[in-house]
Amino acid sequence: MTTELSPDSLTGLLERARKDYQDLAGRGLSLDLTRGKPAPEQLDLSEDLLSLPGGRHTAADGTDVRNYGGLQGLLELREIFADVLQVPAGQLLALGNSSLELMHDCLVHALLSVVPGAESRWADQERIAFLCPVPGYDRHFGLCERFGIDMIPVPMTAEGPDMDVVERLVAEDPTVKGIWCVPKYSNPDGVSYSDETVARLASMQAAAPDFRIFWDNAYAAHHLTDEPVEIADLLTACADAGNADRVFVFGSTSKITAAGSGVAFFGSSPANLKWILANNAKRSIGPDKVNQLRHVMFLRDADGVRAHMERQRALLQPKFEAVARILEAELGSTGLARWTDPKGGYFVTLELTDGGAKEVVRRAAEAGIVLTPAGATHPHGDDPRDATIRIAPSYPSLAELEQAIAGLAVCVRLVGYEQRVG
Amino acid sequence: MTTELSPDSLTGLLERARKDYQDLAGRGLSLDLTRGKPAPEQLDLSEDLLSLPGGRHTAADGTDVRNYGGLQGLLELREIFADVLQVPAGQLLALGNSSLELMHDCLVHALLSVVPGAESRWADQERIAFLCPVPGYDRHFGLCERFGIDMIPVPMTAEGPDMDVVERLVAEDPTVKGIWCVPKYSNPDGVSYSDETVARLASMQAAAPDFRIFWDNAYAAHHLTDEPVEIADLLTACADAGNADRVFVFGSTSKITAAGSGVAFFGSSPANLKWILANNAKRSIGPDKVNQLRHVMFLRDADGVRAHMERQRALLQPKFEAVARILEAELGSTGLARWTDPKGGYFVTLELTDGGAKEVVRRAAEAGIVLTPAGATHPHGDDPRDATIRIAPSYPSLAELEQAIAGLAVCVRLVGYEQRVG
Repeated sequence: MTTELSPDSLTGLLERARKDYQDLAGRGLSLDLTRGKPAPEQLDLSEDLLSLPGGRHTAADGTDVRNYGGLQGLLELREIFADVLQVPAGQLLALGNSSLELMHDCLVHALLSVVPGAESRWADQERIAFLCPVPGYDRHFGLCERFGIDMIPVPMTAEGPDMDVVERLVAEDPTVKGIWCVPKYSNPDGVSYSDETVARLASMQAAAPDFRIFWDNAYAAHHLTDEPVEIADLLTACADAGNADRVFVFGSTSKITAAGSGVAFFGSSPANLKWILANNAKRSIGPDKVNQLRHVMFLRDADGVRAHMERQRALLQPKFEAVARILEAELGSTGLARWTDPKGGYFVTLELTDGGAKEVVRRAAEAGIVLTPAGATHPHGDDPRDATIRIAPSYPSLAELEQAIAGLAVCVRLVGYEQRVG
Repeated sequence: MTTELSPDSLTGLLERARKDYQDLAGRGLSLDLTRGKPAPEQLDLSEDLLSLPGGRHTAADGTDVRNYGGLQGLLELREIFADVLQVPAGQLLALGNSSLELMHDCLVHALLSVVPGAESRWADQERIAFLCPVPGYDRHFGLCERFGIDMIPVPMTAEGPDMDVVERLVAEDPTVKGIWCVPKYSNPDGVSYSDETVARLASMQAAAPDFRIFWDNAYAAHHLTDEPVEIADLLTACADAGNADRVFVFGSTSKITAAGSGVAFFGSSPANLKWILANNAKRSIGPDKVNQLRHVMFLRDADGVRAHMERQRALLQPKFEAVARILEAELGSTGLARWTDPKGGYFVTLELTDGGAKEVVRRAAEAGIVLTPAGATHPHGDDPRDATIRIAPSYPSLAELEQAIAGLAVCVRLVGYEQRVG
């Protein structure tokens, strides 16, 4: 991104960008790239869920799924997701419709009752901090903000968070109680953690005896290529390293079946499970087991999940290809931006030169293209370089997406050349 | 319960009770009266839910219920339940599958973020106390225990909690932040609050500016007679008295449709709603709207709920009648116990002479009849008089229930005459 151009060329490029932007703004677009929402066609893949479980209301063990009880969730559903989430079914809970809720509730439980290994409730400790690999997921940061948890940004690398930084901070600072991780096809930059990263996370020294890795494996089955990425098994690695209680694993079917009516999962060590189940038992008389049975009947087994995700891929891959194709055509030779080419997950990260992201998002919004706010990928919405834009290609139709990305590229050229002309 | 008998008569009665108990214990029963669970036949009434919403996935306003979003829940479902819960649809939220969760989460939100009217988070205050009308619901008390909230028992009367006591404690003590209320067909004694009780709750002086009534209207539609009890509208009464933010209303379809896969509701003032929605927005991307649409299609409207509850009543009423009939036949002339005759709800309260409840529950368990632990109706499981037993007649079949109540009566006679013979 350091191509040098003569002042004359720059002025010409800026003029053309201005004209293109005028045309764009005149088209009265109304397009939305803000969130990683499944498109209606993706939801249609699970249409059968809407009439399941039909006449059936009994789980494999004879439980009447319509009644109260069953804090762990249906075993047969946990068995389906054990492999993909890398958690044995016996250490996996199937719960409500949102893994974000489970992350929230784990923080609440740790704040208000003593998490295994802790000396006191987090609410009674003067300072609590979490490491936040950046760019990252705004809703993780939102939970920290809500609970007054300090956020320490850690740079992402192509192998996951910069482990030299992570190891140093976790070893030195006992107020560092956690780290947010999206280990596969990360939100937003699509990075998958290397085996070495996972091994170092499992075995590193922690100053806090109650340090926890919030392992948000949101895209565990969400491949976009023929070569599905496999990450190392952190739960086992932690146990092998003598840090069995270090990790909370989260997952859900929100982007597998239906986004609002799926099933979320929590996996961890026996001690952590005992702790969370004791807390959950005060809160609820059990999750919606009818919805869990519905999912069992629809997905059938781990192969069923894989086959279903292939159908999802068939809908998503053309959209990601369109983003890459248009960005390359419109910006490839400009030196104004670079972008990720994710092998899975839900996002493309567009990285501009410093100081351009907010302005690009503003100009795009004025032209009817709504993007995730610049900065959302960083704690407190503050991207110090103001360079990162998250693109969520899933929801719009292919035609809308192509319009939106082409329009976004116009905004990148406009702002980029304005910056350079000065 | 003060009938005097000669020592000879007592010895004879005790001998007969001992013989009856031996017979009972020899029958190898295995019966469970512990919890207010719907019976399978009750769940069968909602069988159609299991294949809904069928081909449909669009709410009245065009929302695709399968996707993320909609923190308030479907308006058309809120409209169905507005009347019975006495909360305008615009102030009512339709959320997950459990109202207990919502009560838990309201406590969490008040502990960790400042509730409207409060000077600080409850977690930062030295002492928090809740008034607990007794006998009451053990899961309410369990939430207080979990969060270290002190519980102050208040005696129940035939019109609700003793309002002289409530008014004095709430006016004098700023650490009293809440009161648990099951205002209609209360758990366990079936009391419905009088209009005067509701009016006094709404208008009483509160030392704590952030005092809240947790109004658990769990049995709002759960009538057992031809004359449904109507209680006064606390939300409106609070607003009229200048205490608009005083009440959190809770309800659910758990004992209307399905116990594990229903929909829970939260109603309150605009300021409280804003507060809870802001907190919920950090926790979740929305409730399961498919399940809400399913309920809309199944119940249709408020009349549909009423008709459905008549079908529930047809199953439940014979069980409550059997309890009353058997207790009267077996214990009516003994002076050993009295019991409630609820007009709705899920429980019968059996009140023994002091010091008998634990022993009766123990003897019943030995004879294969499991009851809710004695004391569960009181904070910390401690019924100071050891006199209250909660009977949950809903789950067993009528034949099992009749066996269980007859067996329970034997235990009451055994323990009662043992106490009197000394």
